[in-house]
Amino acid sequence: MTTIAVLGSGSWGTALGMVLADNGHDVRMWARRSDQIEEINTKKTNARYLPDVILPENMVGFTSLQEAVHPVDVVVLAVPVKAIREETKKLLEVAVHPLTIIHVSKGIEPGTQKRVSEMIEEEAAGHSLLKAVVALSGPSHAEEVSRRQPTTVTVSSLQTDASQQAQDLFMNQNFRVYTHTDLVGVELGGALKNIIALVCGVTNGLGYGDNTKAAIMTRGLAEITRMGVKLGADPLTFSGLSGLGDLIVTCTSVHSRNFRAGKMIGQGLSLDEVLDQMGMAVEGVRTTQAAFEMAKRFEVEMPITNAIYNVLFNDVLPHDAAGELMGRVKKHEEEQLGK
Amino acid sequence: MTTIAVLGSGSWGTALGMVLADNGHDVRMWARRSDQIEEINTKKTNARYLPDVILPENMVGFTSLQEAVHPVDVVVLAVPVKAIREETKKLLEVAVHPLTIIHVSKGIEPGTQKRVSEMIEEEAAGHSLLKAVVALSGPSHAEEVSRRQPTTVTVSSLQTDASQQAQDLFMNQNFRVYTHTDLVGVELGGALKNIIALVCGVTNGLGYGDNTKAAIMTRGLAEITRMGVKLGADPLTFSGLSGLGDLIVTCTSVHSRNFRAGKMIGQGLSLDEVLDQMGMAVEGVRTTQAAFEMAKRFEVEMPITNAIYNVLFNDVLPHDAAGELMGRVKKHEEEQLGK
Repeated sequence: MTTIAVLGSGSWGTALGMVLADNGHDVRMWARRSDQIEEINTKKTNARYLPDVILPENMVGFTSLQEAVHPVDVVVLAVPVKAIREETKKLLEVAVHPLTIIHVSKGIEPGTQKRVSEMIEEEAAGHSLLKAVVALSGPSHAEEVSRRQPTTVTVSSLQTDASQQAQDLFMNQNFRVYTHTDLVGVELGGALKNIIALVCGVTNGLGYGDNTKAAIMTRGLAEITRMGVKLGADPLTFSGLSGLGDLIVTCTSVHSRNFRAGKMIGQGLSLDEVLDQMGMAVEGVRTTQAAFEMAKRFEVEMPITNAIYNVLFNDVLPHDAAGELMGRVKKHEEEQLGK
Repeated sequence: MTTIAVLGSGSWGTALGMVLADNGHDVRMWARRSDQIEEINTKKTNARYLPDVILPENMVGFTSLQEAVHPVDVVVLAVPVKAIREETKKLLEVAVHPLTIIHVSKGIEPGTQKRVSEMIEEEAAGHSLLKAVVALSGPSHAEEVSRRQPTTVTVSSLQTDASQQAQDLFMNQNFRVYTHTDLVGVELGGALKNIIALVCGVTNGLGYGDNTKAAIMTRGLAEITRMGVKLGADPLTFSGLSGLGDLIVTCTSVHSRNFRAGKMIGQGLSLDEVLDQMGMAVEGVRTTQAAFEMAKRFEVEMPITNAIYNVLFNDVLPHDAAGELMGRVKKHEEEQLGK
């Protein structure tokens, strides 16, 4: 049995903590809000994020990062992409043992265009206590994981033994974990799929049906793959759980935050109005900006990303952007798949 | 403008006829039932198959195959896979001009394990009037096509000029047609995805959620791809419209016949009960049988196909089959993708 700290007690961090606790590990949840930690410790619930779920006894909450992390050598980092750099810095300040960090966030940083594992490595540069970084990604609504429904995810790391360790820690009958050697592809797939979910939401808001959505998802995966290949990823990774699988869950569920934001935009709301109404960060918006920058920088054709970028940031009407996407010159499908 | 015959006036044949008519072609619909043809000609509707849709003036119905086909050199063959051989034979008996046959059916023949284009070629063997066979496939609910919603499909043929001709005939602002050179991959993708739709229905009937469905679709596409590669297809074809795209539409729509049949099985009905209730052929059932045969014959690992085969034909309980699928030994994801 291993003692593991989970930083961030939102729905995903909590659900993953439950998987680890189910496997007999001692799980130390950390969150900033003391009322949330008290709820975890006294009521064994985290009702705001996972209603109707009872947490296992071996999940204990801490508001002190130092205390949570003190005995562990494995940390699950479950915070928004925006907070990754800051939390990594704080984590390494209080770490005692050499750490394997398993991050579970999906996004790319605008401006730097860095993946999450790169952001962590950068913040840890010169710090002796970072042993390995693992990315965990795949098609997984937290609510379903917390209800122990069959779920599959992928773990990847530059250090094979670290991804194997993550697999061993998380794997159980309901939660299947595959290892993958293509860290770049796994992280890009998880991040860029949020852009496509935004666009699927937009077409839904415009009143289009399943044919359009399937076309956007298929062509969207093609352009994600093109970008991935340019950055050294294996194209087949994008047909796997952290690419296609995650794309499916995010684009076909009305519960996806990115899909819902896109839908409101398709119905005519501005980005500001949507972000106001959502009341929380929509990861796909920042990633759209990052991917737009990447497409320019690496000269990769990403027509769907460009279309949603123009809708979000250049006042192009969703209907006009959709029309332009459909009206592109006729082509061999293979050209579009990066041949 | 071209004169084109469409054999089969179900929802898909009619919707495709509408696309051709919208493009200014003279479309000759053929069906066996005289009341249906009369409805098409007098009321300009085909209400049983496409309710609330008005057909274009340049779509005319015929009950005589000979009359329908007499002036044409392009035929759209829109009949169930079961009827392909018989209709091809009859068609060639009455053909006057060398024909390009565009088939739009998705399945594999149990026993022979032939694709639809192979079945057509076999029936036409030694017949001088078959010029070319084209397969048209992709993510496309007929209802949405008939409402002129944005849709994308793929056409493929061993003769490049024939698929280009099909592209020219069908392409318009709402209906985008990509050509593809990988006929084997295009046909296999469209056929085998029905198996995965059955399984997604089963997991839905068992009460599992989106994570499970996404996992089944992802791993399902992986095993379809493995089989395709074994048969000489390009793996990337399965990431395209006729693979992934069609898989998405079929597995995520409750309107899919295969999905609905699977759902009833997941809820505990037997195959016979389900087929009784459906009152029409469920293409995925026959294709499961064909794919099971293929997996054995070509020694390709197809665990999801095997699982649904055992549920359909060997009285294995859906819940046990699902448990076995989840319980397979832990693996690198890449192994599963055919590396």
